[in-house]
Amino acid sequence: MTQQSPDARHDALLDPARAPSLAGVERAAAKVAALLPPTPLLPLEVDGVTVWCKAECLQPVGAFKIRGAWHRLSDLSPEQAAAGVVGVSSGNHAQGVAWAAKRLGIKATIVMPSNAPQMKLAATRALGAEVILYDRVTESRDAVAAKLLEENGGTLVHAYGDPWIIEGQGSAGIEAEAQLRARGIDGFDKVVACCGGGGLSAGLALALPDTELVAVEPQGWDDVTRSLEAGEILSVEDLAYPTECDALQTPQTWPINFAVLQARGVRGVAVTREEVRHAMRLVFEKLHLVVEPGGAAALAAVLAGKVSPGKATLVTLSGGNVDPKHYAEILAGN
Amino acid sequence: MTQQSPDARHDALLDPARAPSLAGVERAAAKVAALLPPTPLLPLEVDGVTVWCKAECLQPVGAFKIRGAWHRLSDLSPEQAAAGVVGVSSGNHAQGVAWAAKRLGIKATIVMPSNAPQMKLAATRALGAEVILYDRVTESRDAVAAKLLEENGGTLVHAYGDPWIIEGQGSAGIEAEAQLRARGIDGFDKVVACCGGGGLSAGLALALPDTELVAVEPQGWDDVTRSLEAGEILSVEDLAYPTECDALQTPQTWPINFAVLQARGVRGVAVTREEVRHAMRLVFEKLHLVVEPGGAAALAAVLAGKVSPGKATLVTLSGGNVDPKHYAEILAGN
Repeated sequence: MTQQSPDARHDALLDPARAPSLAGVERAAAKVAALLPPTPLLPLEVDGVTVWCKAECLQPVGAFKIRGAWHRLSDLSPEQAAAGVVGVSSGNHAQGVAWAAKRLGIKATIVMPSNAPQMKLAATRALGAEVILYDRVTESRDAVAAKLLEENGGTLVHAYGDPWIIEGQGSAGIEAEAQLRARGIDGFDKVVACCGGGGLSAGLALALPDTELVAVEPQGWDDVTRSLEAGEILSVEDLAYPTECDALQTPQTWPINFAVLQARGVRGVAVTREEVRHAMRLVFEKLHLVVEPGGAAALAAVLAGKVSPGKATLVTLSGGNVDPKHYAEILAGN
Repeated sequence: MTQQSPDARHDALLDPARAPSLAGVERAAAKVAALLPPTPLLPLEVDGVTVWCKAECLQPVGAFKIRGAWHRLSDLSPEQAAAGVVGVSSGNHAQGVAWAAKRLGIKATIVMPSNAPQMKLAATRALGAEVILYDRVTESRDAVAAKLLEENGGTLVHAYGDPWIIEGQGSAGIEAEAQLRARGIDGFDKVVACCGGGGLSAGLALALPDTELVAVEPQGWDDVTRSLEAGEILSVEDLAYPTECDALQTPQTWPINFAVLQARGVRGVAVTREEVRHAMRLVFEKLHLVVEPGGAAALAAVLAGKVSPGKATLVTLSGGNVDPKHYAEILAGN
């Protein structure tokens, strides 16, 4: 597989002049609050310590991705909106973009891996988006998107390497902190986030500047963890490494995300398949929520003792789009 | 099996002087709001019509029962509190009473069927309550509770035949209507509620007086439906009739519930096992919530076309306590 350097890809596809900011996160939070009720912030006791789970799996598209997509698409100029948008996504961002596009009357084309969960493909199409499939191992999704944009025009809505997307995802942090304060607790001191490309992690880093932040990736797809340790962007080495966390299968973070995470001293940890499955089962039993593997990674790290909870810890339950037979298999394997 | 007449049982165990009221529901709603964040009111499209699902499975004990239990126990006098409480429950009310008792420092003893789901028994005990088992087919749970009260004293906290319990459960309606209005919709015109003994249904009837109300029961356990048709309280004829809706397996409603339901012109419908399972799967896929069979009955009736949605329909997703292997089996059977 050949990949362009992240810088070259980034410059080619996005305006590099704009940096995401806390002010932008706050603006996104206001836009999201006007459209979507807050998702619950649910307490969960882990070994006698309460952590706060943000149930983003209850968003209309089943994931936090609706936040960034809405912030991005609702900021397009009329000319940009008329030309349509192109998204690249393993499935949740796809639905977020399709949902926002449908609501705004914008044509959406989404580049998705051919092995994405069936329900994610079906849901994206059901929202009216055109889906273009690519092979996760042999093709670069960014190259497929670049070609589409070159041929048909339109605006790229990247899944994480975009200032609006980062700010939009960060709105979950603003919302969660307000919910925590409403319960009489002063604010979070720690944030544990599921991490693919780093859109949510970077957004939360901006939203909650006084917290310790840990980005959690699946084993084999821990490029952000390794990049933060190395001080430079590294890629996933084996794109065929098996993982159930399809939502977090991102080959590489982007400079715009890495810059935020590095500046905040974020660290990463990786979780195993069994740790993720255990977290999914606990969420089923204690919270009565369906989380997909990628949406359970952050909690998995806490349960496995890889991240110790702080005085007030925010844990993202970031998505719930999982095929029923797959979920049944995970539950029954208890 | 011998059963006392409902009137005799009711008079023996409860103060018959107090009738539940809308004012009581409003007081309960204020007490609940001070303690528990609102559960989400989630839109769900059914054949092009949006219905509003109240996700009570997200309560701390996984069911709406926490509402009535809190209203009841927090109104006990210091002397009553010191003497402890006795609950009778198939599992969700048990957890509600145990949760409220733990929070208030009250001793709780709960009479539960020996075939209740393991997770309900375990969760009730984990909350510090003492569990007394009885046989659902051969024993009367009310008789077991009456004996306990006679021997040890304390206050009965009945699962549905109690004015506080009815008012407390009704707080879900007050909360849901406020959430609907916050979304710019004027109010509900129809309510579809999962129904066991009629605590929730009667509470919602009081809370939302200008709505059409349908109580949904599982096939074979449709005593409320038949009672409302007959104009008098009838019992379930075959207490061994198989159902997965353990939360709705109530042999008979009580006069205090029946009076409210009858006065409001409530009607009942019954749903089959397959209709309930279909609703559980749809909630998994579209809402990413875990609902137990009894918690899916109301939605099942809507999906099956047995209740047609109104302009703004409230549907209770009343509980989510289901054993993982059982749930996996239901999901996989899709």
